[in-house]
Amino acid sequence: MWKPDRGSEQPLYQQIADDLERRISYGEFPPGSLLPSERKLAEQLGVNRSTVILAYSELRSLGIIESQTGSGTRVSKFKWGMTPRHTPNWHRYVEGGSFLPNLTFLRRIREALQKDKSLIDFASGELGADLSPVEEINQLMLENHYTEYLGYDNPQGFVPLREALVGFLSHYRNIQTTDSSILITSGSQQSLYLITQCLLAPGDAVAIEDPSYCYSLPMFQSAGLRLFRLPVDNHGVKPEDIRALYKKHRIKMLFINPNFQNPSGALLHPERRRELLEVASELGLPIVEDDPFSLTAYNGSPPPPLKSMDTIGSVLYIGSLSKIAASGLRVGWMVAPHSVIDRLADARQQMDFGLSVIPQRVAAQFLKSAHVQPHLERLRMNLQFKRDLLMEALDRELPGLITYTAPQGGLHLWCRIIPEVQDNRLLEEAIRQGVIFAPGSVYGSDSGYVRFTFARARAEDIGPGIAKFAAALRSTIR
Amino acid sequence: MWKPDRGSEQPLYQQIADDLERRISYGEFPPGSLLPSERKLAEQLGVNRSTVILAYSELRSLGIIESQTGSGTRVSKFKWGMTPRHTPNWHRYVEGGSFLPNLTFLRRIREALQKDKSLIDFASGELGADLSPVEEINQLMLENHYTEYLGYDNPQGFVPLREALVGFLSHYRNIQTTDSSILITSGSQQSLYLITQCLLAPGDAVAIEDPSYCYSLPMFQSAGLRLFRLPVDNHGVKPEDIRALYKKHRIKMLFINPNFQNPSGALLHPERRRELLEVASELGLPIVEDDPFSLTAYNGSPPPPLKSMDTIGSVLYIGSLSKIAASGLRVGWMVAPHSVIDRLADARQQMDFGLSVIPQRVAAQFLKSAHVQPHLERLRMNLQFKRDLLMEALDRELPGLITYTAPQGGLHLWCRIIPEVQDNRLLEEAIRQGVIFAPGSVYGSDSGYVRFTFARARAEDIGPGIAKFAAALRSTIR
Repeated sequence: MWKPDRGSEQPLYQQIADDLERRISYGEFPPGSLLPSERKLAEQLGVNRSTVILAYSELRSLGIIESQTGSGTRVSKFKWGMTPRHTPNWHRYVEGGSFLPNLTFLRRIREALQKDKSLIDFASGELGADLSPVEEINQLMLENHYTEYLGYDNPQGFVPLREALVGFLSHYRNIQTTDSSILITSGSQQSLYLITQCLLAPGDAVAIEDPSYCYSLPMFQSAGLRLFRLPVDNHGVKPEDIRALYKKHRIKMLFINPNFQNPSGALLHPERRRELLEVASELGLPIVEDDPFSLTAYNGSPPPPLKSMDTIGSVLYIGSLSKIAASGLRVGWMVAPHSVIDRLADARQQMDFGLSVIPQRVAAQFLKSAHVQPHLERLRMNLQFKRDLLMEALDRELPGLITYTAPQGGLHLWCRIIPEVQDNRLLEEAIRQGVIFAPGSVYGSDSGYVRFTFARARAEDIGPGIAKFAAALRSTIR
Repeated sequence: MWKPDRGSEQPLYQQIADDLERRISYGEFPPGSLLPSERKLAEQLGVNRSTVILAYSELRSLGIIESQTGSGTRVSKFKWGMTPRHTPNWHRYVEGGSFLPNLTFLRRIREALQKDKSLIDFASGELGADLSPVEEINQLMLENHYTEYLGYDNPQGFVPLREALVGFLSHYRNIQTTDSSILITSGSQQSLYLITQCLLAPGDAVAIEDPSYCYSLPMFQSAGLRLFRLPVDNHGVKPEDIRALYKKHRIKMLFINPNFQNPSGALLHPERRRELLEVASELGLPIVEDDPFSLTAYNGSPPPPLKSMDTIGSVLYIGSLSKIAASGLRVGWMVAPHSVIDRLADARQQMDFGLSVIPQRVAAQFLKSAHVQPHLERLRMNLQFKRDLLMEALDRELPGLITYTAPQGGLHLWCRIIPEVQDNRLLEEAIRQGVIFAPGSVYGSDSGYVRFTFARARAEDIGPGIAKFAAALRSTIR
């Protein structure tokens, strides 16, 4: 993003005024549209608010913008063209669409991270650069001369990647499948999106865990689904709750993250897994199994997926490389009955015309390479190491103020704050202190829970990050 | 896909039975689900129908499948597990979703192309391998050591790619914009999808060209939009029609493909462009300008986009690399007011969590490289060459039976068939003859129109392909 040049002859306010005039004339801010507040623009450009005030008054004097107390600063309507013209009421369009925007908290987190690169990031649910096999991937890209024709991909995804996944899923997840039963998706996210859009209809009732990553996805509400909660304890959801929900609401589908659940870290108990599949088959209820974390099991023996115990085809299995290799590959997969795969592949063609062949090819090479096993072992070791750093810091900085259960896999630690605290005040104070996290309410829980992702931040920042968080918490509850 | 081994000791029918049993046990065909018809499976595996009949009877004798005359062959329900279990009624889910499947014609075309690689392809609207800069792209990938961290991308898309586009759009399309006004999308397709999902609501009326690529996208109906037609003549749509539609239906948005329109090839007349923008600004009506083909102008001087004449920000501009470089990169872009870009970027995060950084990085390198200009010149020359081959073949093979206007850019030729003919019969006969095309009804026109894509097929196949088409047409109208 453009920043004023402090070395330049031209005063800062003048540079800012010129840049704004350029962006207005380019249509970034059409006539009548609202400009950033003086405070916000000052933050974005890293200048004093007084400088922005000068720049705005400059533009006002030129008749390019107009300010009304209360309604902020807007681009003038009648400056452009002699006869009055009507710019579309973009605000109405932006607010009018049927698809819901992301949660305010998530947009706030994204905005804060984009603005201040120095924030210690416990919020982004992904691996840090130190945990991704970037060098291995880079090497594979250089070794493999790219020769395929770069046309539209097969609607189900790049065939060599699906073939590589047949072996990977059999070896690492004990899932026996065929390439024709696999759909390659843009991470687990797109699998969930396709399922909610194409297999369910507005008004349908679905059961999701509480807390759950699903609550952070307005896509469920956008699809008009009715969400019902399955409380998660240390051993996951209780199968009998599912039968009760079904009786009461005729739920149409079940969304489960059985291994190192996001955010709670819970591991579904083996006994409950059997019962869960029993109940599902008894009710003819489809299970969507989201399984992004299982290969991170710190003890090195990943729990088996429900899919590997599914004898009658009730499970739609979702996995991806995002949490075990690199989220930037955008490579995920779904294993499902062919009729389902076929339907979702067809719908996805309409949405984005399929994925680029290039990252799929890289992913196929990676999965077939000798890099996988050593990478996964290194990943487990480093994740456990970072988890321990986080727990040590929490115990040191916040004795008696928080409780948590040590996760045995995954990227997150789920933490309850004992004293009464408001999510939004704590988040804002933490950002001021230079650290950011994901408030529990994002995942559907009450105020006073926090999800710490320990995989993203650098090891050396974890301790200092928690110190900042502790300061923020103390000043919030004081 | 698996094929029986003709060299093997084991008889073909036995191999097929074993493969089916494996796929059934893996859940590709759950209990109760329908198996492919004998004819269809025989086609897929390239064996005689009698062989499949034997394989099915083998599985029937094992109680794995059951056939009922009329209702086809299904996987047995009670073979799996002692107590009767209920597999989810996948059929109901697949049919139940609110998002509509692709048109039957398009699915038929995809299926035929996947089954028979020898079909001469006038249907796929993309460049052939001979027209894509595969070698240049490959070279760029090898030259540029990949070092970035492979995390989630910026919601608006890879910053260096947006920066490269600012220069590209200014130089080639006379569009002045900033990286903050650009959203990178998975081709134009995703731009259209995001607009219909996020800026419009069910019941909204929109105007689209007739014929138009938009009719091939059930996403418009999936979004619950009411579509109204703007007839396209050789000079594009008539601005006065828009005013009439607005008065009558209060249309909320206008979808236009002004340069070498898909499928008609029409070029919107300069006078009409001015009027169109006048009408739009008078009504405060947003215009979605889809501009994938303009840089293919055979005379080397691409027509200006509406966006370059848009002084008040009524145009959402959509472009991509799909039709000018490689569809497999899945790199497209939208230029729009910041509030719109921000909203769509946020929604896209929910759908697929953004695009992979890798192809975006390749695209950025390509756009900044010295390859672009020579590639575009070569592309124009070769497209015109292939168009001429197509027209010569049509004139030679079908004198008096068809009419068309020679397109001055783009990948397609739009052709009217003079004698009465049924789209579906012609398509099936053409497939039998070994050639495939896109029926005009896919684009909303009446029966008797054909879209020939001349960019995809190899030059040497164009003549023979049209000969096959001519044979198909003659035997259909006879």
